Amino acid sequence: MNIADYKTLFLNYLQSKNKVKEPRNLYEPVHYILQLGGKRLRPIFVLISAEAFGGNAKEALDAALAIEVFHNFTLLHDDIMDDAPIRRGKAAVHEKWDVNTGILSGDVMMIDSYRFLESYAPKTFKKLGILFSKTAVEVCEGQQYDMDFEIRNDVVLDEYLKMIKLKTSVLIGAALQMGAIISKANAKEQENIYNFGIATGMAFQLQDDYLDTFGSEESFGKRIGGDILERKKTWLFIKTLEEASDQDRKKLVAIYSDLEKSNSSDIAVVKELFRKYEVDRLLKDQIQLYSDKALSLLNELNLAEEQKTLLKELVMSLKTREN
Amino acid sequence: MNIADYKTLFLNYLQSKNKVKEPRNLYEPVHYILQLGGKRLRPIFVLISAEAFGGNAKEALDAALAIEVFHNFTLLHDDIMDDAPIRRGKAAVHEKWDVNTGILSGDVMMIDSYRFLESYAPKTFKKLGILFSKTAVEVCEGQQYDMDFEIRNDVVLDEYLKMIKLKTSVLIGAALQMGAIISKANAKEQENIYNFGIATGMAFQLQDDYLDTFGSEESFGKRIGGDILERKKTWLFIKTLEEASDQDRKKLVAIYSDLEKSNSSDIAVVKELFRKYEVDRLLKDQIQLYSDKALSLLNELNLAEEQKTLLKELVMSLKTREN
Repeated sequence: MNIADYKTLFLNYLQSKNKVKEPRNLYEPVHYILQLGGKRLRPIFVLISAEAFGGNAKEALDAALAIEVFHNFTLLHDDIMDDAPIRRGKAAVHEKWDVNTGILSGDVMMIDSYRFLESYAPKTFKKLGILFSKTAVEVCEGQQYDMDFEIRNDVVLDEYLKMIKLKTSVLIGAALQMGAIISKANAKEQENIYNFGIATGMAFQLQDDYLDTFGSEESFGKRIGGDILERKKTWLFIKTLEEASDQDRKKLVAIYSDLEKSNSSDIAVVKELFRKYEVDRLLKDQIQLYSDKALSLLNELNLAEEQKTLLKELVMSLKTREN
Repeated sequence: MNIADYKTLFLNYLQSKNKVKEPRNLYEPVHYILQLGGKRLRPIFVLISAEAFGGNAKEALDAALAIEVFHNFTLLHDDIMDDAPIRRGKAAVHEKWDVNTGILSGDVMMIDSYRFLESYAPKTFKKLGILFSKTAVEVCEGQQYDMDFEIRNDVVLDEYLKMIKLKTSVLIGAALQMGAIISKANAKEQENIYNFGIATGMAFQLQDDYLDTFGSEESFGKRIGGDILERKKTWLFIKTLEEASDQDRKKLVAIYSDLEKSNSSDIAVVKELFRKYEVDRLLKDQIQLYSDKALSLLNELNLAEEQKTLLKELVMSLKTREN
């Protein structure tokens, strides 16, 4: 199977499970957000990992669903917290319905994600549950740090990297480890595939940061410069503060201190500053480091060749992706 | 041990586990709401049930904590949805902090409640997890029906009873069944103690409805008539619509159609209508039916005498309670 096959396998399963029940006002938003689309990267990682360790992707479908439903729960609640009206080009749940609906439908998604794990035997169920809960707590912690950073002016790179690790990478690591658990991989193999996921997740998220500022609107599908308009303390911003002259640092801080977020002429000014200190190139180097690390961790793992190749492909595509 | 002893045992355990971690903005609200107090009825039920079936309350402390943390998570998110500024006489989390904090701290409480179950061996862990998730989904469904009823004018008694069963009773049933699971009670015993909890929960919630309208402010600790001011379609309201003359029904509907909720003279008018059709007495009869049912289910169960007496005491106290 290739990556598209794994995606199709997952999507068919998702569709078979994504039914609207009563009360409809609770479950219609769940159905809505789950069919909005997306890369389905996390569930694909669960399935590939299960087969890489000698199991069958079909046995991993419920874990893949748990991960994807949990991920969409976080998107739903994050969109409320970030007051983001659009999700995957469509109205976010709290816009299409309202904030209360978004809160409660998110809550039930989170609980439902645990329920998908109930098809596994007790020992596997417990291993998956422990990893799942640990990861879910970390994702909440990542979201909290992200919100904390909005009102802080002294965020350093290590803190930023820790935040995106919690908010993004740990769930990718957990997706891969869950596949490994289902296929009875040993503790060392589980640790290695998890770490492969962490490195991959870091490359993925930093590429997202790069594209948000230096991507092309056409291929990225979102407005370029959104992070700048929202005054997000991304890797590019923090690194520029480190590298810039006093004068440029003051200039950048002045722009980011202005809470009027709608001045789109800021985008060009800030991008110019980023380019002046070559942080776009430095970020590309950082992404390369993480993907090199991911590939080297992958090489050490004793995996089925077919799936190992797919994982390699995925890492290569994530760091060069334009959307 | 008496009921106060079980409460103390639980409170000491809660205190030992209720620590503020990093990020503080995420965990301080969790610490805050968990120490606000309350009857601690649900965790006490877990502990008494565990000993009633021959186990040790200490083994049930983690399940009791899971139930109490989950219950407080629902209070936290419900207070946001209901825009309720006060919880147990203090500022609600979304008032003391803000709505975003309330959402995210609630989310992490929900996940943490699952983590407390991890101290149980895999088979028990899975049994507890399945019951816990099923119950948690039902509580969300109950909250959705409650919100749906706010904008419906044709709610009938059976629907109302189903809503409070989901929103309140199933968690009390689950608390008791979790104690039974931990003490290795068989399936039939688990079912019976769960049903005892359902009946007890119904009596408890209906007594709450009664006190909200006919209680004394001094002992209830909340403003009397809150449900009337908020136009809640409680048992009293729905039953009066059933019993009243056309003229009185129109009068009541007119008052409840008025969305200005602040006219406290409504309270006296509505209470008068409730009394005219004796629905206060009819509600007391209904509460009696549920507590009779609970006591009869209890009598059929083969439980340790000490704890059986305590459960009987709890049922009797819940239906006569004034706060």
